Amino acid sequence: MIIVLKPGHTQSDIENVEHKVRELGYEPHTIKGVVRTVINAIGDETAHASLEVLATIPIVERVFPIQKRYRMVSREVTPETTTIPVGNLEIGGNTFHVIAGPCSVESYEQMLRTAEHVKTSGATLLRGGAFKPRTSPYDFQGLGVEGLKILDRVKQATGMPIVSEVVKETDLKEMLGIVDILQIGARNAMNYSLLEAVAATKTPVLLKRGMAATIEEWLLAAEYLVKNGNPNVILCERGIRTFEKATRNTLDLSAVALARQECNLPVFVDPSHAAGRHDLVAALSCAAIAVGANGLIVEVHPDPATASSDGSQQLTFEMFEHLMQRLAPFAEAACMKLA
Amino acid sequence: MIIVLKPGHTQSDIENVEHKVRELGYEPHTIKGVVRTVINAIGDETAHASLEVLATIPIVERVFPIQKRYRMVSREVTPETTTIPVGNLEIGGNTFHVIAGPCSVESYEQMLRTAEHVKTSGATLLRGGAFKPRTSPYDFQGLGVEGLKILDRVKQATGMPIVSEVVKETDLKEMLGIVDILQIGARNAMNYSLLEAVAATKTPVLLKRGMAATIEEWLLAAEYLVKNGNPNVILCERGIRTFEKATRNTLDLSAVALARQECNLPVFVDPSHAAGRHDLVAALSCAAIAVGANGLIVEVHPDPATASSDGSQQLTFEMFEHLMQRLAPFAEAACMKLA
Amino acid sequence: MIIVLKPGHTQSDIENVEHKVRELGYEPHTIKGVVRTVINAIGDETAHASLEVLATIPIVERVFPIQKRYRMVSREVTPETTTIPVGNLEIGGNTFHVIAGPCSVESYEQMLRTAEHVKTSGATLLRGGAFKPRTSPYDFQGLGVEGLKILDRVKQATGMPIVSEVVKETDLKEMLGIVDILQIGARNAMNYSLLEAVAATKTPVLLKRGMAATIEEWLLAAEYLVKNGNPNVILCERGIRTFEKATRNTLDLSAVALARQECNLPVFVDPSHAAGRHDLVAALSCAAIAVGANGLIVEVHPDPATASSDGSQQLTFEMFEHLMQRLAPFAEAACMKLA
Amino acid sequence: MIIVLKPGHTQSDIENVEHKVRELGYEPHTIKGVVRTVINAIGDETAHASLEVLATIPIVERVFPIQKRYRMVSREVTPETTTIPVGNLEIGGNTFHVIAGPCSVESYEQMLRTAEHVKTSGATLLRGGAFKPRTSPYDFQGLGVEGLKILDRVKQATGMPIVSEVVKETDLKEMLGIVDILQIGARNAMNYSLLEAVAATKTPVLLKRGMAATIEEWLLAAEYLVKNGNPNVILCERGIRTFEKATRNTLDLSAVALARQECNLPVFVDPSHAAGRHDLVAALSCAAIAVGANGLIVEVHPDPATASSDGSQQLTFEMFEHLMQRLAPFAEAACMKLA
Repeated sequence: MIIVLKPGHTQSDIENVEHKVRELGYEPHTIKGVVRTVINAIGDETAHASLEVLATIPIVERVFPIQKRYRMVSREVTPETTTIPVGNLEIGGNTFHVIAGPCSVESYEQMLRTAEHVKTSGATLLRGGAFKPRTSPYDFQGLGVEGLKILDRVKQATGMPIVSEVVKETDLKEMLGIVDILQIGARNAMNYSLLEAVAATKTPVLLKRGMAATIEEWLLAAEYLVKNGNPNVILCERGIRTFEKATRNTLDLSAVALARQECNLPVFVDPSHAAGRHDLVAALSCAAIAVGANGLIVEVHPDPATASSDGSQQLTFEMFEHLMQRLAPFAEAACMKLA
Repeated sequence: MIIVLKPGHTQSDIENVEHKVRELGYEPHTIKGVVRTVINAIGDETAHASLEVLATIPIVERVFPIQKRYRMVSREVTPETTTIPVGNLEIGGNTFHVIAGPCSVESYEQMLRTAEHVKTSGATLLRGGAFKPRTSPYDFQGLGVEGLKILDRVKQATGMPIVSEVVKETDLKEMLGIVDILQIGARNAMNYSLLEAVAATKTPVLLKRGMAATIEEWLLAAEYLVKNGNPNVILCERGIRTFEKATRNTLDLSAVALARQECNLPVFVDPSHAAGRHDLVAALSCAAIAVGANGLIVEVHPDPATASSDGSQQLTFEMFEHLMQRLAPFAEAACMKLA
Repeated sequence: MIIVLKPGHTQSDIENVEHKVRELGYEPHTIKGVVRTVINAIGDETAHASLEVLATIPIVERVFPIQKRYRMVSREVTPETTTIPVGNLEIGGNTFHVIAGPCSVESYEQMLRTAEHVKTSGATLLRGGAFKPRTSPYDFQGLGVEGLKILDRVKQATGMPIVSEVVKETDLKEMLGIVDILQIGARNAMNYSLLEAVAATKTPVLLKRGMAATIEEWLLAAEYLVKNGNPNVILCERGIRTFEKATRNTLDLSAVALARQECNLPVFVDPSHAAGRHDLVAALSCAAIAVGANGLIVEVHPDPATASSDGSQQLTFEMFEHLMQRLAPFAEAACMKLA
Repeated sequence: MIIVLKPGHTQSDIENVEHKVRELGYEPHTIKGVVRTVINAIGDETAHASLEVLATIPIVERVFPIQKRYRMVSREVTPETTTIPVGNLEIGGNTFHVIAGPCSVESYEQMLRTAEHVKTSGATLLRGGAFKPRTSPYDFQGLGVEGLKILDRVKQATGMPIVSEVVKETDLKEMLGIVDILQIGARNAMNYSLLEAVAATKTPVLLKRGMAATIEEWLLAAEYLVKNGNPNVILCERGIRTFEKATRNTLDLSAVALARQECNLPVFVDPSHAAGRHDLVAALSCAAIAVGANGLIVEVHPDPATASSDGSQQLTFEMFEHLMQRLAPFAEAACMKLA
């Protein structure tokens, strides 16, 4: 920790801050500069209370940490990328996996048709929401348990592992055994109670970045999962909220490059929720693979214009097939295999 | 709903869209303009599926709703401000209530001293977190049930109603009977499962705005509570996340004015979390009352420099007393009583 | 400056960085912590090259400055608030000044009627744009020099000092002598060439904050003016660009409180451009005075529904009169006089 | 334009709005819906005054335009991508051009060495700032005219066309003849006076997106150039300002995909200013080509740790060479030639 004092402090002010620093378990080293005095507090920041409370002392101008707050997900601790087994697949290796499927599970026929089509085009995992967190209480909230049963039947029929969002702890019992990857959505990205409950299941997790989460907060959410016993975490960038409204969110591909560099977990990209419009999904998918992503999650629907939710960003089967073809040369350029 | 077509459409394109509009339960009225064709879809948007799915039709350029999505919290439906009884107090009337207390419950002595001081200075409700959602799993997570017991004892000793954050459904049973106002924090502002569980308790709720929630999303979160049977909702603006980092968040007082105008619920302001620094709290509190807020929630700690969490934004007793004195003439200017 | 090294560095890495630090004119003090090594570089950051270039050395993790970059506008250098004489008025003292008038100068009659009305209601300065920077080249760009002549006639007729925006250096000659306060708009808030040209005139300046300018960048823009010989600078907060679209911009009143605390210049608030809608202007004006602003700039138009620009945020005469009445008790609460 | 009325309006309110609509040159078509009344105003929005002023009528709830505001840069008007001749090069065709060079011109030797190296690695144009707009008046402001002379000599020696930033109209005379592409920086992206002056030169322009400019505002800035007689405009995405601070800005590659789709101008990407850190530049460059960009502008310096400005984001020669090698397969995947 670095503590910067305001000008005009006395020697006794310095000693007072040094005393507090020692009380909190750090060793102070004071450096008097030309314009400011700086106290370096030596100690492991993650093992002691934060010194940020010292900012309340009137003579303290600023306090800033110098360590990273995440540990177990950091490449400093574990340099190699974690690979995550899901059925026969391995996420995080040199195969680029594409999760595809509709926003919401609507019917068995809808899911089966979609699964067959996306599988043929090259998707390896199937997505579909049974529990939908919706902004308005008047919007379609998902089929719930019935939706899970549909996912189970389609999984049996096609052999595709299932990715589906969990919105509350009490749904987990019914999801386990059916859902292969539990998705934590952007709205629950800082719901730490849910993260702890999901960690306890040991089931692989697709962890979306919160709509206004910093990269550090996203990695700390992953740290919650790993620290609580579940190392099978896939990060997923899905766009952040900015002033730009031509797209629903702003896809932050720098965050993908940075997360790949800082963190040992695989990183996926969700171009559908990022753009909120189908016409940009293919271009953003190519950019995702080029920037270093390990996979994609893409919304595909048999007839987007009648979808129960998020129609405007879902691809038709034809658009998805085209996306996969367009992706192929970029996968090769990135030295990744498409399934 | 308004559907704008791209240039170059044919009559059959128009008929195709009109057909879809009818299928979704609306009546289309098509207006051919000089540059664009616009289809007005007549029908109650909150009673039918959204037409936004029509944006997937290639010839459709944009679709936008014209109705507001919240109903029960809207002044269009109920023009008068809801008043909420809490113990002997009434929130939302012409008394300006100040909730004060530490970020986290740390000990009985800490809570009791704080309660006595803030009560003397004019606070009418006591805050204190027993369950703390923290960005890092290595940070102090609150005393939990033990913290609730402390709150209960201090409530008995001082008669002050208690405001405390709920982070998961399964904690509710232990909170009820002790906590008078359940706080939904910014991180759970779109945790709709938790909102539904809290609604079922009928206990008054202080609903923080999410760190990147639009005003509409905030009012829709309130709609979740009211629609599920709990009309006792207090909105709370606590700053939004922006590019500016000199303050932790950017306090959005326009949102307070707008929420007061649009919505029939009382609106509080949390200047402590907005600023993230104690030196701006008093000025922002005065601005809050001037813009039309119904109350404040302010962090106060006997010794902020040793606080377990959020020390840098907590006020000392002396600072809080000064804040209340500074507030008094502005309350009078706003024709509000301070307790 | 503080330089944090990555883990895994050698003694020779440290010496290499220390050498660079000395080359750039600073004295290095190296502190080896438990987890990180930190080099404190001692020297006046504003008098030497920035050490941020050292971030390019692979073993350097981060470099951060500890000094503030503005000097002349800082209360550390000059604690008292600068007062600025404009005609018979004094900006920055204990009178709260309201600048009012239309977005654009449209005609002599429009300006004269507006001036008379706003003066009667209590405004002390008149605004009106002759040169309008507009987002689209197809929008009304102002009357130009003809607009200046109208402003001059109205100034003679009413005695009100004139505030008008300058958009390019070559217009200055015609503006001087007519315009009493040159406004730098949000779009030109980082147009340093224009700031230097305006500084040379010594004419008082109303310096809007850029739509995405940090508080530090805003104060540094002021520093450009003061350093180049013009101490007569009034800061003006006008809302920043955020994700929230219910208001055109998000008025950042924390920035007003902070600028007042950090900087010795008077701070005005522009609630009209912040909100972009007339119905919030009065509430935000009251909040501005409560948070510590020294004045307001408000758009008023005889008939907003026919205005050439920005109609939706302009007040009618009646609305403005009401605003001034509503403001009065808050001015008193803030111990400020209204003219 | 679409005008939405508030509930509770009378027939005479409707007629009043219809009357105003006609006065402004549009033809009103009123549709009474179940919950709202909507007035469709027919007419060319770009040829008449905006109806947004009608939002000031109390009974009007909202007014929104349905047309796009840019015309000449729109693919609706000119579907094919504009190609721009610069020396022997053609920008916007199927060659992917890389502009490289230091942030600031520092000396002839620095520029010459850089030019030779980046040319060998595959760059086709040379960048270097002679006039530097800097946030602080105490930072290095560029060598000015002396810098231009250096650029001229290096251009003669290497044959590389020169890209350099213009910050004020009065510098243009000295820049023309030396500078082949005038760069408009992010800080001047809404300096319409400068855009008009640059348009008059007919010299090709690299138009950076403003740090908080929407895509629409960026395209309208381009429209200023084209409408004023200069069709030789290259758009350049350089990151937008968001809450995320791990990168200096957030590179918005969705904006690149969207600008390519909407607009007939070539689009470049500046990964150096977007990231503000050298370690992400290569990954972002690959993503840029994958998303559909026509070229890059990258900062390269012989010794970034001694650079006069922006050191932390500049690449060494070796890093740049590596970037070009990494780019090659992605260029091929995108069916683009590297020079």
